[in-house]
Amino acid sequence: MAVYTDIAEDELKWFLTEYDAGQLLSYKGIAEGVENSNFLLHTSKAPLILTLYEKRVEKSDLPFFLGLMQHLSAGGLSCPLPLPRKDGALLGTLSGRPAALISFLEGMWLRKPEAKHCREVGKALAQMHVAGEGFALKRPNALSLKGWQTLWDKSESRADEVEPGLQNEIRSDLNFLQASWPKDLPDGIIHADLFPDNVFFLGDELSGLIDFYFACNDLLAYDVSICLNAWCFEKDGAYNITKGMQMLEGYQSVRPLRDEEIAALPTLSRGSALRFFLTRLYDWLTTPEGAMVTKKDPLEYLRKLRFHRQISSPAEYGLSL
Amino acid sequence: MAVYTDIAEDELKWFLTEYDAGQLLSYKGIAEGVENSNFLLHTSKAPLILTLYEKRVEKSDLPFFLGLMQHLSAGGLSCPLPLPRKDGALLGTLSGRPAALISFLEGMWLRKPEAKHCREVGKALAQMHVAGEGFALKRPNALSLKGWQTLWDKSESRADEVEPGLQNEIRSDLNFLQASWPKDLPDGIIHADLFPDNVFFLGDELSGLIDFYFACNDLLAYDVSICLNAWCFEKDGAYNITKGMQMLEGYQSVRPLRDEEIAALPTLSRGSALRFFLTRLYDWLTTPEGAMVTKKDPLEYLRKLRFHRQISSPAEYGLSL
Repeated sequence: MAVYTDIAEDELKWFLTEYDAGQLLSYKGIAEGVENSNFLLHTSKAPLILTLYEKRVEKSDLPFFLGLMQHLSAGGLSCPLPLPRKDGALLGTLSGRPAALISFLEGMWLRKPEAKHCREVGKALAQMHVAGEGFALKRPNALSLKGWQTLWDKSESRADEVEPGLQNEIRSDLNFLQASWPKDLPDGIIHADLFPDNVFFLGDELSGLIDFYFACNDLLAYDVSICLNAWCFEKDGAYNITKGMQMLEGYQSVRPLRDEEIAALPTLSRGSALRFFLTRLYDWLTTPEGAMVTKKDPLEYLRKLRFHRQISSPAEYGLSL
Repeated sequence: MAVYTDIAEDELKWFLTEYDAGQLLSYKGIAEGVENSNFLLHTSKAPLILTLYEKRVEKSDLPFFLGLMQHLSAGGLSCPLPLPRKDGALLGTLSGRPAALISFLEGMWLRKPEAKHCREVGKALAQMHVAGEGFALKRPNALSLKGWQTLWDKSESRADEVEPGLQNEIRSDLNFLQASWPKDLPDGIIHADLFPDNVFFLGDELSGLIDFYFACNDLLAYDVSICLNAWCFEKDGAYNITKGMQMLEGYQSVRPLRDEEIAALPTLSRGSALRFFLTRLYDWLTTPEGAMVTKKDPLEYLRKLRFHRQISSPAEYGLSL
């Protein structure tokens, strides 16, 4: 959570003249997203999110992200919708940064999601996968096998600082995944970061998905495995098979998984656990003490990785085979 | 700007059952205020501010602050209004902290205020002083003569790090102010921190005053001198007499200053410049590098202090005597 850039109100008013957004009533920097600066605007028409894209986001990726939200929204998914400027562009410039105005989605993320919520998330993920079909732009997943290797090369020599023996353990995971990563599964647009803070609920009803800034093209079932990791483990590290079952049933009620996707689930889940372990490990080793960012413990994902390593059948995730 | 405390959505919903605030639709931590955690809530009724009071605020002061906002609002001032709970209390508890629900004020603060805005601020300040009459609670100003001495005692030995000779210079200011501080001027409730970021405008119209967490009982004309310091100097350090004139005329259109208040203005302004110099100096010397808080340059207020020191007549502030 962070606001990196302050905006002067006269600059913002000038920026808004390019949009048909109503009269500006207020704007507040909000503590949301770690990559960008976000502001909640009240206008005479509707609340809006203003996002200023900071350095960590590749400017060349922005048409993909903004176009994707438009495409998914048009496909019936509830997600933030970029407002076009009067000239049709989705992107403007504010305080020297690329900036977009995006519809505000009411709802709250669940700090303690239950199995029934996992079912809704599974459904929404499948809806997103279906709605993503036909989207013209492509973006490769920078955090797949190759990206993991790059991250690991930067962290490997210090991995044993976190836990003795980790260097050998992770190296053998990487070797396994390089050798057995599935190739011919259905692919498409994946969210790639559908953690609880990116899913809004109103009561028990899912009101929408946010934060598509990791979205990319990859195996759809890999996205399912990310959600299993993000939603279906308890704080004590135990896998909650009821949550897993609900998540997978919810998903399959919209888009049934193929046999080969189901068969690949343990490998994919091992991969996605490794992916979050590696980014957290890297941040853990490189973020200075006292920095503004909360460091997430990499060991949480090490425990998940070990769980997936010992899975003998996809049924253990809660699938009725 | 900071959000110190995260709130779980189920805790917040539980907290809201004590209020008649409508259905919760969303809440966002906002980057506002450095002492407390603030959240902007959308409900089915109206937007609201939720404030969690962190350690730096004295819990025993909260009835003063919240009661004051209620009193000023009832007196016709546009300012945030605390919502009473169903049991009538203005204060509840959330995440282990005292917490209040307060009406949301639309408007934006001006990064580059003009003379016409200074006039509006002067008027609103006087309206606040008038509306403050009859408020039953008292709170002494902890940042007056005694408080300055305490701050100075902690910083004096290192003052020359900021600028050589500063130790003697500031010591003689303190001696002068201790000897000549006015005593028999009209007193009452003052805002004590009415900087541009605490005054909201919609277009050129002032929409309200916020942040009463420095409010206290003190000389009303001292509050005027704080506003002269906060609003009427340019970035290059020059006093803008047109802004000063507008500020003072605006103020006097609601509450005319007495002759003795006018005569005391140079001394009061010297005191308020010293007050902000001293807190900034202290923060400058004690805040660790890389902390989350932006350090404000104490030299800005040193320059203002030197300006007030050489004033020979209150007319130099833009008063027609």
